[in-house]
Amino acid sequence: MALKLYTNNMSRGVVVDWLLIELGVECERIEVAYQTEMKSPEYLKINPFGKVPVLVDGDVVVYELDAICAYLADKFAEKSLAPALNDPKRGLYYRWLFFISGPWEAASTNKMLGIDVKAEQKMSVGYGDYEDAYNAFVQGLGEASPYLCGEQFTAADVSVAAMLFWQLKMNEVQSHPAIERYLENISKRPGFQKFAAVFSNV
Amino acid sequence: MALKLYTNNMSRGVVVDWLLIELGVECERIEVAYQTEMKSPEYLKINPFGKVPVLVDGDVVVYELDAICAYLADKFAEKSLAPALNDPKRGLYYRWLFFISGPWEAASTNKMLGIDVKAEQKMSVGYGDYEDAYNAFVQGLGEASPYLCGEQFTAADVSVAAMLFWQLKMNEVQSHPAIERYLENISKRPGFQKFAAVFSNV
Repeated sequence: MALKLYTNNMSRGVVVDWLLIELGVECERIEVAYQTEMKSPEYLKINPFGKVPVLVDGDVVVYELDAICAYLADKFAEKSLAPALNDPKRGLYYRWLFFISGPWEAASTNKMLGIDVKAEQKMSVGYGDYEDAYNAFVQGLGEASPYLCGEQFTAADVSVAAMLFWQLKMNEVQSHPAIERYLENISKRPGFQKFAAVFSNV
Repeated sequence: MALKLYTNNMSRGVVVDWLLIELGVECERIEVAYQTEMKSPEYLKINPFGKVPVLVDGDVVVYELDAICAYLADKFAEKSLAPALNDPKRGLYYRWLFFISGPWEAASTNKMLGIDVKAEQKMSVGYGDYEDAYNAFVQGLGEASPYLCGEQFTAADVSVAAMLFWQLKMNEVQSHPAIERYLENISKRPGFQKFAAVFSNV
């Protein structure tokens, strides 16, 4: 039962490509064109959001980038890209996956849209405001040694580092010594170098 | 090594209380007052966001509500509140956890703040717009039979159902036959009834 990845080279689907390289797993890759194919009735049956990436594994359809990352890391548990079920570090792993896809994504999107959270609204907003989210982010990265879960490189590193590389490139995040040091650790990985070489032109 | 939950009865920490009831697990519960204790230097060392809930398990500090839920379900894997690592349903489980904490949380927050995503911004916004997110949500719930992952009740049901109960109560989501049917399935559970009885006054 082969895995299928519906994706687009200009999308976050490339994060899954990097993870697949780190896992050493093959996956059929189906490029889906933006706007046309992605909004077609056939594709909306697969993902009602009309977005990529989507991973199909037999009868199961997985979307949300970090859901795909967490799923693949668990499916190929022998590759150790997630802490074991009974390892307390698994709490840290989930904390990072849900931070990057939740508060950080929301805070970054609203910053890009030019939306400021007013002081009286902060209590109702999960991430507080952008400054809170940024400060929590760099404080957490400061503890990464060398990776988010310590010595073990995980799928959370793939997701968090890919977000940072992208946002730095697009000038959507301010750099910080903790960010630079962390990305330097990531850049040394053969899996990342292989990924970067393949995707440097997309 | 006892688990500690830093929480507040008026916070989403009650979702963790419900999950603990479903797991049949005891946990030390430390009530943290909003604004004062929650923003104290001691507490900010535990969670730099100054929010609850936070789960502490030995050296590991877990925050983000859905990270806590996923962590507890894995730690007590014998209670079967998460599909097994090699079960394809685990993809569905993660899809729901990351949907509720990612696109749904972001779309609901911006709706509450009165922010509309303009047509030309939709491609840059993870959840598209509120209508897209709502439609995908109810379409997915329509397939819940009786739970999100089929016959197996999971931590994703706790998180998704708790969000829906809360948003219906606050008039923050429009009801829908798929929502009503799903919450009816959930309401039959002894674990939910026990939780509702304890927390009906908070």
